[in-house]
Amino acid sequence: MSNDTILTKDPGFRYHEKAPKIDAKEFQKVIDSRRSVRIYEKEPIPDKIIQQCLRNALLAPNSSNLQPWEIYHIATPEVRQQMNKACLDQIAAKSAATLFVAVARTNTWKEHAKEMVQLFEAAGNVPKSAIAYYKKLVPFVYNQGLFGIWGLIKRILFFIRGLKTPVIHEPVSHCHMKIWAVKSTALACQNLMLSLRAYGYDSCPMEGYDSKLIKKILQLPEDAVVVMVISAGKRAIGGIYGPRIRYDENRFLKRV
Amino acid sequence: MSNDTILTKDPGFRYHEKAPKIDAKEFQKVIDSRRSVRIYEKEPIPDKIIQQCLRNALLAPNSSNLQPWEIYHIATPEVRQQMNKACLDQIAAKSAATLFVAVARTNTWKEHAKEMVQLFEAAGNVPKSAIAYYKKLVPFVYNQGLFGIWGLIKRILFFIRGLKTPVIHEPVSHCHMKIWAVKSTALACQNLMLSLRAYGYDSCPMEGYDSKLIKKILQLPEDAVVVMVISAGKRAIGGIYGPRIRYDENRFLKRV
Repeated sequence: MSNDTILTKDPGFRYHEKAPKIDAKEFQKVIDSRRSVRIYEKEPIPDKIIQQCLRNALLAPNSSNLQPWEIYHIATPEVRQQMNKACLDQIAAKSAATLFVAVARTNTWKEHAKEMVQLFEAAGNVPKSAIAYYKKLVPFVYNQGLFGIWGLIKRILFFIRGLKTPVIHEPVSHCHMKIWAVKSTALACQNLMLSLRAYGYDSCPMEGYDSKLIKKILQLPEDAVVVMVISAGKRAIGGIYGPRIRYDENRFLKRV
Repeated sequence: MSNDTILTKDPGFRYHEKAPKIDAKEFQKVIDSRRSVRIYEKEPIPDKIIQQCLRNALLAPNSSNLQPWEIYHIATPEVRQQMNKACLDQIAAKSAATLFVAVARTNTWKEHAKEMVQLFEAAGNVPKSAIAYYKKLVPFVYNQGLFGIWGLIKRILFFIRGLKTPVIHEPVSHCHMKIWAVKSTALACQNLMLSLRAYGYDSCPMEGYDSKLIKKILQLPEDAVVVMVISAGKRAIGGIYGPRIRYDENRFLKRV
């Protein structure tokens, strides 16, 4: 593959960003105090903080920098009322200062890959293999073809090749494409929720909603997947329903 | 539905966790300085920090607290060598101090829902509707039945009901179950990566791997989905390939 070099070898860039000194205790407080809040105070979140938290969401890592995400901030009362309904009038939605809808897009990679090529070509100093990655490999990997036929062909090709050497088997279906886009979008969601916490606010990620209705309300295109609705605001007394419950970590953390 | 009350009305709990004062500047440094690092210094990550970061991962919010995640810490040289190969010898894997594999499980919810019921019943003071949620609603929602038949029936039921009232349409397929489990696991991944950053280390989330080979190496069960491999260590000069590229935020952030 044309991108072997850039993936497996040090391309010899000398770019550097020095890691700052961070007071980890402050970060730990964010992680520890983030709880799903279901009842909020009436107090709104200042717009400046919302903007900062949303911008932080977009700083999450994402697959090949194809940024397959969108976040809708529900700011008008009419849309908000419709959204409360779409969230089945859950109190975690109804009582919140505001709502966000995180959406994964399975089609925008085409446009974004093209722009990466343009950016790289304009920069002039980007290795050819990096340009080829977005020009050739990305379309090869993410296209599934009409009715997923190209995905099916790839599935067979990868299976055969995989018999003698390690290969990447996904994405070769529309389901894989959704998983792919949802994954990056969820990373952004966690950035959003932690940011809200850091700036003094709380949140609750919700999946209990009518996704078809949300797509209609937000006029989302066919390829959009509603990943989660995140309510936000300031926690009310009784808004966290109880101490955090996690099973024994040895069930989830394996050292191999 | 039996859980209408607990979802739509304030159940009147008086539990409270006071939000701590947090220096948001320290948190912001974590978000800003987290970059995907592809070449690392040799320096290992102290075990205590790894443990803290992994524990933080499990503090992410997750769907109905069903904790459908697992994280494998690749700590032995033999498994590490196999994993490097499964990651197609990417330098982001090869040069890292250590690797983590985040896995989503689509089947463990059964066991976890039962344990929630046991915990709630043992506590004695949990509302009946919360117990019914895990005892009845969770199995109804997440079971897809043999060959997904029950999912198909649900899809039709929800479609019909959805004609007159908002309903939750997912999960009604095995694909939806994967999306469901991947979503919560990705939230945990972002906690892990940010935690590494806060404690002075770097990471790179990877999708370029042979998922079948990883399932074999880690002896993962059928229902497991490899969500991402996260490499970690200390950034080397040239390990970040260039300044962060994000498209215009107005493309992704919509105010409605």
